[in-house]
Amino acid sequence: MTIFQFLDYAGVAVFAATGALAASRKQLDIIGFLFFACFTGVGGGTVRDVLLDRNPVFWIANANYLAVCVAMAILLYWFAPMVDQRYRLLLWLDAAGIAAYSVMGAHIGLEVSGSAPVAIGMGMLTATFGGIMRDVMSGEPSVILRKELYVTAALAGAAHYVLMVSAGVDEALSACLAVVIAFVIRGCAIQFNWTLPGYRHRLGRVVKQAPQDGDSPDNRV
Amino acid sequence: MTIFQFLDYAGVAVFAATGALAASRKQLDIIGFLFFACFTGVGGGTVRDVLLDRNPVFWIANANYLAVCVAMAILLYWFAPMVDQRYRLLLWLDAAGIAAYSVMGAHIGLEVSGSAPVAIGMGMLTATFGGIMRDVMSGEPSVILRKELYVTAALAGAAHYVLMVSAGVDEALSACLAVVIAFVIRGCAIQFNWTLPGYRHRLGRVVKQAPQDGDSPDNRV
Amino acid sequence: MTIFQFLDYAGVAVFAATGALAASRKQLDIIGFLFFACFTGVGGGTVRDVLLDRNPVFWIANANYLAVCVAMAILLYWFAPMVDQRYRLLLWLDAAGIAAYSVMGAHIGLEVSGSAPVAIGMGMLTATFGGIMRDVMSGEPSVILRKELYVTAALAGAAHYVLMVSAGVDEALSACLAVVIAFVIRGCAIQFNWTLPGYRHRLGRVVKQAPQDGDSPDNRV
Repeated sequence: MTIFQFLDYAGVAVFAATGALAASRKQLDIIGFLFFACFTGVGGGTVRDVLLDRNPVFWIANANYLAVCVAMAILLYWFAPMVDQRYRLLLWLDAAGIAAYSVMGAHIGLEVSGSAPVAIGMGMLTATFGGIMRDVMSGEPSVILRKELYVTAALAGAAHYVLMVSAGVDEALSACLAVVIAFVIRGCAIQFNWTLPGYRHRLGRVVKQAPQDGDSPDNRV
Repeated sequence: MTIFQFLDYAGVAVFAATGALAASRKQLDIIGFLFFACFTGVGGGTVRDVLLDRNPVFWIANANYLAVCVAMAILLYWFAPMVDQRYRLLLWLDAAGIAAYSVMGAHIGLEVSGSAPVAIGMGMLTATFGGIMRDVMSGEPSVILRKELYVTAALAGAAHYVLMVSAGVDEALSACLAVVIAFVIRGCAIQFNWTLPGYRHRLGRVVKQAPQDGDSPDNRV
Repeated sequence: MTIFQFLDYAGVAVFAATGALAASRKQLDIIGFLFFACFTGVGGGTVRDVLLDRNPVFWIANANYLAVCVAMAILLYWFAPMVDQRYRLLLWLDAAGIAAYSVMGAHIGLEVSGSAPVAIGMGMLTATFGGIMRDVMSGEPSVILRKELYVTAALAGAAHYVLMVSAGVDEALSACLAVVIAFVIRGCAIQFNWTLPGYRHRLGRVVKQAPQDGDSPDNRV
């Protein structure tokens, strides 16, 4: 098993687990666990394969991926009730998932398109799409709206992989290093609330109290 | 017209009707009805065709499907105001839609991939995707989060079809039986609130009142 | 540069700007700006290319599109704080985007499928999809649920283009006129709250105060 096969299965498994945890937070039944686990587990990779026109899509070509998702759903159905901080576990598994998938996405993007920016974009997209779908379907505020580093970790993983491979570093070594970088960034964000500076109000900006045209509640500035 | 052609048009029509009902609940204009009807009507089948790389996508190959959606939108625009319980009608039409589409999706998934698990997954996905998009776009809580059987009905329809066909039963007969099974399960769920057991707190689990690290409102366990 | 190349880049740029404005309204960091700009900028066109099976997808074939999105994200990161009414600016840029994309989508849909209804549907879908994704990901109520004309403007742009080309009018001229029509309709909707008549309660409809089966809060009529 190569490092990329390992990352692929690992990414699917941990994202499936986050889907199952989301289902447990919504107190769904076992089929709800299966559904969320499959959707979240294969979501990002499915978009990657569709965009790069890789046929058939990975989980259609190889039913093992679905089996992994089903196994995670059943596992979490039994063990999630024992976990005290399910959302925190979800965040850590999600961190492992974006680390694995940002590098996998960049690897496949680079192989198929040969373009560094496309590969980095594909890594970000692959790493974040499953989590976005999980949050949208379960009605949670999307994890990409959180202040701590999230997309940044995916970007760092994808960019480091692409840059190292472009610089001639061995693919497997680049992948390992990039996964660690992405995971450490996201992990520190979870543990220590690492953030980048957010949107700042410039000096001299006058915040108007009364909107100028009060015809709509959406005229928030 | 074969049973599968019938199921295909029936699924599109009833999902389009649920989209139009969602538009009526949001008090949209006629174009909003058209938009929701088309999106919901062809959404699930579009994802199925894209994932299985069937080109062109069914409603691009044959404009009749769009015509069906437009007709349902106009029909519902006039008749929805006469309906007293629009959400209940929406649920029943949606039940007919998931019954038809879970079997259609499994049928096409089986034809293209030849794999039973993939066919079942495709049936579930096809049956639920349109409704998920309808709920997300209209800002309603997703129907898959409801406690009554929903994904379970889609899974039952797809699985029964695949199992019966694999056991050598005639395709048309299998399809009819599987549609009835899925519809009856979902119908009983609507009428009698059938559920599977949900997520259970295990005995002995201590629910902590105070989160251990109170830094985030998302640390819900 | 043809009119269609111009519309394509213009549509991506203004949608990317609306994504960046959404990120600024959520007070995200610079990477959040990049992410929303890229997702919103290329979202609609990506769905168009996937559905029409155009390979590779436009921003994979040509990394300039991603560069445009990145540039808009950086630009808005610096200039958004100076804007007093960011949501209003977002709506106007979005109006320019749906005008450009409804015509581009109809143009490509017509070229690939040769069918007028499919081309019109593709124009509507292309024009609205990026905005829907932006709103869903940023947790805002979807712009398609607003009472003012929105989908109608996209439909008008796509339909006028298709009808004029079918009637033998020059493609570039048709495109310019159709873009203006869509933009004027949407602009008037923003400025003067133009609407179509919404869903009406028919005379004689008795609104029941008590739901007949009070078992669910979702039995809203």
